[in-house]
Amino acid sequence: MTASPPEPRPGPTPAATGHQNLDPHLDRYAARTKGMTASEIRALFAVASRPEVVSLAGGMPNLAALPLESLSTQMAELISEDGLSALQYGSAHGVPALREQICEVMALEGISAHPDDVVVTVGSQMGLDMVTRLFCDPGDTVIAEGPSYVGALGSFAAYQADVVHVAMDDDGLVPAALAEALSQAEKNGKRVKFLYTIPNFHNPAGVTLAIERRGEILEICRRHDVLVVEDNPYGLLGFDNQTYPALRSTDPDNVVYLGSFSKTFASGLRVGWVLAPHAVREKLVLAAESATLCPPTLNQLVVSRYLSTHDWKGQVKTFCENYRERRDAMLSALEQHMPEGCTWTRPDGGFYVWMTVPEGVDTKAMLPRAVTARVAYASGTGFYADGLGSRQMRLSYCYPTPERIREGVRRLAAVLESEMDLVRTFGSVTARKLSGPQAPSPDTE
Amino acid sequence: MTASPPEPRPGPTPAATGHQNLDPHLDRYAARTKGMTASEIRALFAVASRPEVVSLAGGMPNLAALPLESLSTQMAELISEDGLSALQYGSAHGVPALREQICEVMALEGISAHPDDVVVTVGSQMGLDMVTRLFCDPGDTVIAEGPSYVGALGSFAAYQADVVHVAMDDDGLVPAALAEALSQAEKNGKRVKFLYTIPNFHNPAGVTLAIERRGEILEICRRHDVLVVEDNPYGLLGFDNQTYPALRSTDPDNVVYLGSFSKTFASGLRVGWVLAPHAVREKLVLAAESATLCPPTLNQLVVSRYLSTHDWKGQVKTFCENYRERRDAMLSALEQHMPEGCTWTRPDGGFYVWMTVPEGVDTKAMLPRAVTARVAYASGTGFYADGLGSRQMRLSYCYPTPERIREGVRRLAAVLESEMDLVRTFGSVTARKLSGPQAPSPDTE
Repeated sequence: MTASPPEPRPGPTPAATGHQNLDPHLDRYAARTKGMTASEIRALFAVASRPEVVSLAGGMPNLAALPLESLSTQMAELISEDGLSALQYGSAHGVPALREQICEVMALEGISAHPDDVVVTVGSQMGLDMVTRLFCDPGDTVIAEGPSYVGALGSFAAYQADVVHVAMDDDGLVPAALAEALSQAEKNGKRVKFLYTIPNFHNPAGVTLAIERRGEILEICRRHDVLVVEDNPYGLLGFDNQTYPALRSTDPDNVVYLGSFSKTFASGLRVGWVLAPHAVREKLVLAAESATLCPPTLNQLVVSRYLSTHDWKGQVKTFCENYRERRDAMLSALEQHMPEGCTWTRPDGGFYVWMTVPEGVDTKAMLPRAVTARVAYASGTGFYADGLGSRQMRLSYCYPTPERIREGVRRLAAVLESEMDLVRTFGSVTARKLSGPQAPSPDTE
Repeated sequence: MTASPPEPRPGPTPAATGHQNLDPHLDRYAARTKGMTASEIRALFAVASRPEVVSLAGGMPNLAALPLESLSTQMAELISEDGLSALQYGSAHGVPALREQICEVMALEGISAHPDDVVVTVGSQMGLDMVTRLFCDPGDTVIAEGPSYVGALGSFAAYQADVVHVAMDDDGLVPAALAEALSQAEKNGKRVKFLYTIPNFHNPAGVTLAIERRGEILEICRRHDVLVVEDNPYGLLGFDNQTYPALRSTDPDNVVYLGSFSKTFASGLRVGWVLAPHAVREKLVLAAESATLCPPTLNQLVVSRYLSTHDWKGQVKTFCENYRERRDAMLSALEQHMPEGCTWTRPDGGFYVWMTVPEGVDTKAMLPRAVTARVAYASGTGFYADGLGSRQMRLSYCYPTPERIREGVRRLAAVLESEMDLVRTFGSVTARKLSGPQAPSPDTE
């Protein structure tokens, strides 16, 4: 057969002939690209979007309660009245009026801040990326809860930082475990740059750092001369109208705070922010400028108008009610259907339940079988930088309706039952590389 | 006097006492922050925004010709009809419909591309940052025109890449100089990762790469196994209805192409893109995901609607007419007012004129005197990574009215005249660190 191979892409590709399946740029990439792998959650988004699958995998906020008609009018007014500003470049620092409003939002959690020290970012993911850019050289260490937010682990990997996970329990990060990890890191000569923590309604663990632990965590970090990066996208989404004092509120000079409008307003606008100690803020603006020049002006003005003209706190309350109803649906369905030996966290806010399954079941290996049974979840391994988490999974209740959540949990329980049957009959279902004690995790009930 | 010092910021700052003026985080920053310094242009933005100053410094597009009323209606419709998508997370890859339209835009410059290979970014600045993230380890070398885009130099510095500048003339990058620089770099054991080039209506040089040089540049890069990063924000802004074949159009496997809607539609939306060889594209999506999760969905849908419902090519034509009128105003004013010994480029598209002043005048040192005379420009040093450019300045004609441009040039000429008087009387006005031959630059007339 000497017929020429079919052209893989339209258009002229003269140089590709003969090595279509190899990457001719392989020797050119920076070392940091070795840490860039498709997250398991990302691979799942495609599957989860099939309508017959109940997705308990993603973290998309449920926006159905947004007042679209009034937002539509407002957007039109913004362009008519202030279009030349909204469509023009702005500063890398962000729109001043919005930075003032952001300070008012943060005041709800006890933070007293100056608008100068707020830097608007393209979602808090960009804030995370910028903070890592500022502080982490390759080989530096970041301390993070185990499990931790998958997007944070992605940023840490992109800057070749090592991650040391620290255990949580029902009351969040365990101070003694943090102190021990820091001492150990010092003993091993590691350069620890910061503690990355999600104190409220943790993603993925669903737990909240107890108020009485907060001062202790700050004190430990100060003692070990380690910065605190406080990531707080869910803080206003407490189901009992509760808020917690931000770590930043009592230690403004040693805490970098990340905030976001993705969960309290709209994720597709990509408006987040960093509140940083004054000296850090100047460097942050420079870093942000080299990353995107400036955050989109339109989106900042949309958020600013929304905050000043809508009952945005009432809207957050509505969101909370929706999420609480979904949380309740998930917890009662788990109670009703899950086989013995499964344990899970009981979040009082946010989007996620973290479940631990019995010994012998591998949540990553089980996932294709779950999807076949038309339910998806995020397997625990994605939330650890060290390959642990194979006995855990994250269950999101934020997006589907309560009915779908109940149906999804029912399907998942059936998959787990048959998996556990196999384990009882044949031993561990999948030969796993990891054995021995499982990861530190909020394994609670 | 033992009165307590005034509180520098509101809110509790217990740890700041005693060292308000020091950065307590100084030992914590990553090595890359050493390269992060405020660009001269950025510092100028504040000054230039004073209404009495004619700013020939910034690169803000003139948006006055945009059809705001119709955009306003369209934005309202988008939110009413498709708000739940527009306000929701999307993929890091970008909205598929927009990626298809982007391929149609690029076809105007001879590019045949598959939408899969387009990655939407937060302005092309983010594309630049992502490409540098993918390819540059600290100490790697990037070849760039001298002068080059200040934002690109910022990204290269953020990844600790070294920049080697290559000379341009009236016909853009000089192939022989490129070949020589690459041979020299190889001899010196440098790892050259890519050529960064702005072929059309160069920022800041105002020149365009001659068509007959394009194949030669591509061939030289292939021979030296160096990737080409083609940055083309101004390509459709030719003043004589001309477009040039993109480098990408003839070498799809060795060119990464950066595009933007900032100059053809609206900069405040921050919608740009990267067209990359297929293998590179996959890594690019992962890098973008760790940087911002996804570009703002709203902005992508706004651009997509605009492209499909507006006469966007007619709008670009209107922009071009406005810019041509401004270019003409600047060139004729320069001709009329500039003292002997000044030379400048004559752009046939884009935003910028690059001017070289007589020996002895330092454009950076002169800038405060110019601002006092109520005219601002960007001094040439910001466009070189190596401190050259002190005899050059960038003059932007994109934003002010023709009358203001003429007035600005008149003021600038007067400042230069008095500066040159001082040089004639006392020798060089400022003791400069750099002496000897000036930077390679498009010093033409």
